[in-house]
Amino acid sequence: MADSVNIGVVGAGTVGGGVVAVLMRNADVIEARLGFPLALARVAERNEQRRATLGLPEGVGTDDALAVVNDPGVDVVVELIGGTTLARDLTLAAFAAGKHVVTANKALVAAHGEELLAAAQKARVDYAFEAAVGGGIPILRALRESFTGDRIQSVQGIVNGTANFILTRMEDERGTTFPEVLAEAQRLGYAEADPTYDVEGIDSAHKLAILVALAFGGQVRLEDVYVEGITKIEPLDIDYAEDFGCRIKLLAIAKRADGEIEARVHPTMVPESQLIAQVDGVFNAVAVTGDFVGPTLFYGRGAGADATASAVVGDLVEVARAIRSDAAARVPAMGFQPAFRAPLPIRPMDRVESLYYLHLKVMDQPGVLSDIAGVLGRHGISIGRVIQDGRAEHEAVSLVMMTHRAVERAVQDALAEIEKMGCVRAPTTLIRVESDED
Amino acid sequence: MADSVNIGVVGAGTVGGGVVAVLMRNADVIEARLGFPLALARVAERNEQRRATLGLPEGVGTDDALAVVNDPGVDVVVELIGGTTLARDLTLAAFAAGKHVVTANKALVAAHGEELLAAAQKARVDYAFEAAVGGGIPILRALRESFTGDRIQSVQGIVNGTANFILTRMEDERGTTFPEVLAEAQRLGYAEADPTYDVEGIDSAHKLAILVALAFGGQVRLEDVYVEGITKIEPLDIDYAEDFGCRIKLLAIAKRADGEIEARVHPTMVPESQLIAQVDGVFNAVAVTGDFVGPTLFYGRGAGADATASAVVGDLVEVARAIRSDAAARVPAMGFQPAFRAPLPIRPMDRVESLYYLHLKVMDQPGVLSDIAGVLGRHGISIGRVIQDGRAEHEAVSLVMMTHRAVERAVQDALAEIEKMGCVRAPTTLIRVESDED
Repeated sequence: MADSVNIGVVGAGTVGGGVVAVLMRNADVIEARLGFPLALARVAERNEQRRATLGLPEGVGTDDALAVVNDPGVDVVVELIGGTTLARDLTLAAFAAGKHVVTANKALVAAHGEELLAAAQKARVDYAFEAAVGGGIPILRALRESFTGDRIQSVQGIVNGTANFILTRMEDERGTTFPEVLAEAQRLGYAEADPTYDVEGIDSAHKLAILVALAFGGQVRLEDVYVEGITKIEPLDIDYAEDFGCRIKLLAIAKRADGEIEARVHPTMVPESQLIAQVDGVFNAVAVTGDFVGPTLFYGRGAGADATASAVVGDLVEVARAIRSDAAARVPAMGFQPAFRAPLPIRPMDRVESLYYLHLKVMDQPGVLSDIAGVLGRHGISIGRVIQDGRAEHEAVSLVMMTHRAVERAVQDALAEIEKMGCVRAPTTLIRVESDED
Repeated sequence: MADSVNIGVVGAGTVGGGVVAVLMRNADVIEARLGFPLALARVAERNEQRRATLGLPEGVGTDDALAVVNDPGVDVVVELIGGTTLARDLTLAAFAAGKHVVTANKALVAAHGEELLAAAQKARVDYAFEAAVGGGIPILRALRESFTGDRIQSVQGIVNGTANFILTRMEDERGTTFPEVLAEAQRLGYAEADPTYDVEGIDSAHKLAILVALAFGGQVRLEDVYVEGITKIEPLDIDYAEDFGCRIKLLAIAKRADGEIEARVHPTMVPESQLIAQVDGVFNAVAVTGDFVGPTLFYGRGAGADATASAVVGDLVEVARAIRSDAAARVPAMGFQPAFRAPLPIRPMDRVESLYYLHLKVMDQPGVLSDIAGVLGRHGISIGRVIQDGRAEHEAVSLVMMTHRAVERAVQDALAEIEKMGCVRAPTTLIRVESDED
C-alpha cells in the first residue's frame, strides 16, 4: 500500500457497511480512475457482531474510534456515527491530526458546518459531505463545480425519502390515513421507530440549510428555516390535489426574493406536469434553476446503504485526487470563497408569497361561503377556484379553495379569524402551491 | 487584471455570445466562487456585425482566431467555431502555445478526442468539454467526479433537443406527420435548414460516444455506434405506443452486456411510468445507473446559448481553479487514467437483444397474421401482444405486434422475409423497447 491513499471508517452501520463494500468490491475500477489504490486501512465499530459480518482483513477492525482518528497510517477519516456531539468531537480531532474527513452527517453539517469548515481550513485539510444531501445524487458537486457561472435563482427538493414514500402511498391507496401509512412504512423499514425527523420536516430542513449555503454563497442558521411536516395531510387533500391537477410533496424550497432568500420546508402542491411531481416512493430529486442554465433536475436514491456509500466514496476519490495533485482547497467546500460568504438574509415566513390551497371543514348551511370569502377579502386574499361538492370528513363538509397569490401573514391572520367562526368545525388544512407557471 | 485568469473566445455565434454574456454579467458571482476574476481578454469573430453587438470593451474584439490562440495574455481558449477541421487545428495550436482549451464541440471530441487529449496531456494543459453533451446538464462531471466509486452499468439519454421537440409535437398534435412537424421546427428555429445531424441521430451518436468513453473507461470509435433516426416514425406509431403505455423517444443507449458494451441510438419506446419518458420538447435528460448508486437521472436544457454557455463557464471555473491550485490533470478528462483505458468491446447491433414493436402494413385478408407469426416463429421470435383493429394508413391496414425478448439479427432476417410476402404493402416500422422492468 506504499502509494495508496488510506481510509479509516468510523461507524460501520448501514452506510458504513456500504462504504466498506464499495471499497472492497470496486477497488479495481476506483484504481483505474485514480491511478493508485484507495486502501481500507481501519474500521471502527463498537458492535462486535456487526464488525464480524463485514469480512474485514486481519487487523483492520477495531472498537475504538479514536484509534482510527489518530492512526498515523490513515489519510482520510470517514465519519458515519451520526449525531452532533461525539461526531463533532471526532471530526475536530481528525482535523487536529491533519486528516481529511468525509461524512454523510447532515445534522452535523447543518448545525456546526461553519465551525467545522473553519477548523478544516485552519488545518489545511478537506471536509467533504456530498452524501449529506440527496444520498447518491451529486447535487452539492453540481452547485460547487458545475453551475459556477450562474447566479442560482432557486433550489427545490424532495430530500426525504420517508416522507415521499408516505405521500406516494397515500395517493396509491386512496383513503388511507397518515397514521396508517406511517405504521406500514415502519413495518417495511422505510421509517424509523421515532419518525419525527422525517415526517416533521426536520431532516429536510437540515439538507435545505446545506443547499442554501452552497447555492447562494453565505451562511444560514438552521432556526431561520421554516419547517412544517406532513402529519396533517388527510386523504381528502390528496383527492382535491388531484382535482387541481396537482400532487402533494414535502418540498424543501429556497429562492431569491428581492434581495432576501426564502428558505422553507412544508407540504406543497406541485402541478403534475412538472417533473418533480413525478418523483415517487423513496426516491429524491432536487431542481436547481440558474440565470443562465435555466431549469435543471437531479434524481436518484436519497438514502440507503449503497447509494449513500456511492456518494461517500465519490468524495473519497475527490479528496484522494486533491492529496495527490497537491491541490488542497482547489474547490471551497461551500462553493464560494470564505471571504465572500456572509450571513444570508433569510426572508421571514410571514412575508413569503404563494398560492394557497385551503381545505376548510364547515357546517353545511347557507351563507358559509360568503362569510368566509368576506374574511379573506378583508385580508386582501382573492379566491381563484372553489370546490364545494359535499365530500365529507369527520362531521363537517369540505369547502376547498385555491387562492390567488397572497402573503403568508395575511392568510394566517384570515384563517385565525375564520377558525373562530361558529360554522367552522375543525382546523383548516393549508397547503402552499409551487408552480413553474406561477 | 494582474491576478485574473484570462479567457480568449474563438467564435462568437450563439454559444460564444452566451459565454461573453455570462462572463460580463456574472463576473461578481464568479469572482466570489474563485477568489479572483475570470477576465474576458480576447474575442475572435469574423462576422463584424455580430462582433459589434457583443458590447465588448475596446481592444477585446478581433477577426483573427490565431491572434487569440497565440496571445501571450490568454490563459484559456474557448473554441466555439464548430466542425472538425479548423477547430482541430486551432485546438492543437492552443495546446502547443501552452493554453488550456474549453469547448462545446461534440463532433470534434467524438471524432478526434483521443488525439486531442494526448496532445493536451503532452502539453500539460486541460481540455474540457462538459458543454458538448446535454448543454447545461453537468453529466460529464458527474461521471468523472461523482460516480467514481461505481461500476457504471448503463447510460441512457435524450441528448438531442430537436428530435425530442419533433417527437413531443407529434404526440401533442396527433396525426401530424414527421415532415410537417420538421417544417414547423425549422420555422421556430428549433431545427437547422439541414436537419440531418439531428433527425438522423448523428448528433446523438457523437454525444453517446463521449458518454461511453467516460462511463466505461475506454476508447470508442464513432463508427461502432449504431445509429438510426426518427424520420420513419408515423402518426399511427405514436398512437400505438400510447396503447402500449409507452412514449417514443430518440434514446442514446449504452450498457454493459456480458463483457461487451452496447452503444446505439434509435427511436425507442419507453414506458410512461419511467421519468425519462416525461422529458418533453427541447429538454434533454441522461439516466445513469451504477452498481452502488442505483438509477439516477439528470435533466435540463440540452442546447441554446444560455444553457450551453453556463456549461462552458463552469469548465472555465474548473480550469481556473486547477491553474491556481497548480493541480493540472487532477481529474483525467475522460474520468479514467490513460494507462487504464483501452478500446472498448462494442457489441455489434446484430447481437443486441430487446423487445420489439413491429408495425406491419398488410392487406386486410384472412391468414395474414398466421403467415407472419409463422415466419417470426421460425426465426425464434415469440409475440407478446397483437393489435389488429383496422386502423389504416396508406392503402393497407395496420398489424401491430410487441415481441418478447429477441435478437436483432433474427428480427431483421424475419422482417426481410416478411417484406417479400405479397400481403405486405409497405415497409415495416420497427421500434425497440427499453424498460426498467425488462
